[in-house]
Amino acid sequence: MNVKPQEHVKVLINYLEQFVKVPEVMAKLIIRETTVIELKKRKHLVSPLDLKPNLYFILTGSVRGFDRDDHTDITSWIAIEGQIVGLTLYSSPTAHGRRQYIETLEDSRAIMIPNALVNTLFTLFPEMGTIGRKLLWLHYYDAEERNYLTRLSSAEKRLRRMIHTHPQFYYRTPIKYLASYLGMRMETLSRLRAQISTEKVMV
Amino acid sequence: MNVKPQEHVKVLINYLEQFVKVPEVMAKLIIRETTVIELKKRKHLVSPLDLKPNLYFILTGSVRGFDRDDHTDITSWIAIEGQIVGLTLYSSPTAHGRRQYIETLEDSRAIMIPNALVNTLFTLFPEMGTIGRKLLWLHYYDAEERNYLTRLSSAEKRLRRMIHTHPQFYYRTPIKYLASYLGMRMETLSRLRAQISTEKVMV
Repeated sequence: MNVKPQEHVKVLINYLEQFVKVPEVMAKLIIRETTVIELKKRKHLVSPLDLKPNLYFILTGSVRGFDRDDHTDITSWIAIEGQIVGLTLYSSPTAHGRRQYIETLEDSRAIMIPNALVNTLFTLFPEMGTIGRKLLWLHYYDAEERNYLTRLSSAEKRLRRMIHTHPQFYYRTPIKYLASYLGMRMETLSRLRAQISTEKVMV
Repeated sequence: MNVKPQEHVKVLINYLEQFVKVPEVMAKLIIRETTVIELKKRKHLVSPLDLKPNLYFILTGSVRGFDRDDHTDITSWIAIEGQIVGLTLYSSPTAHGRRQYIETLEDSRAIMIPNALVNTLFTLFPEMGTIGRKLLWLHYYDAEERNYLTRLSSAEKRLRRMIHTHPQFYYRTPIKYLASYLGMRMETLSRLRAQISTEKVMV
């Protein structure tokens, strides 16, 4: 039988092929076992109750990873279309009390990659080992960049570095979450935004 | 010829075997191509000039990863004996202007794993793929924890979380670097330390 791949899953296969050639039988399994989901903004993709969290490839929209901390929450990362999210949860066997969530920041469309499928792919295809490793490099690199970012000594430096490395975050992320991501108060971020927009007018 | 493994390299092989069984021929290659180095404290292990940085397995002592930022520096991670360091540099093909260093915080002994050996191991042994992936999970998990840590809303919360997750850092790291790692001023860290030591006396 000839499985006609849906457009969206082709996008995911193309994404994986930046790491390694995906065998046809593996691609067919991915096509069969993944689902496209539509989500309104502010909807949880993953919560601490998910003991076997799925991975999600974002087709359109954006999401944030956050932790609940007493009565507030802490945005520790942001991701937009064209990225796989959910590895954070995979990587936290001992979360030391953290309660981690992923939620949409915009109306979004994503490909859900079930936890069981990920495990099956690792078992059946050595290519999945290579994909896993290279995907982890990307995520580790991003995490290290975020670590550097938050340790920059002034709020302005942090904001300017983020605009340089991830300009889309600046335009698309609600100020409340962006301030948390950048480790500054909302008032500080508002003031800096006003300052930066004045600079642009003057150029 | 029977190669008698030195004690120190056995420690490294044991470390790698938590991830996967290391074939004998791979172990022999590691034993042959690695070197133990002794370093005084405040000595650079890696600098931005190293285009093909080596990995280091720390046998004794501790090190920090830092970036130079204008006239100051930013400590973004700390590692102690029993860990492999140097992946950060591997993962930064585009560093966006960062200048990353690794230096010893104490007199240390480490096994140098040359860049060329790492590449050879990846080429010759599928086990190295598994080691790479599992080692990256550990590092990614640690990086995510550091991300969460620095975004906690108060200096006291950050310090208490670090004492909970990495108590050794508290006792062994010079205050200057620890303050940078925790994203607070030295004065704040001193004040919190005094407060915490009073609590302990009172218990």
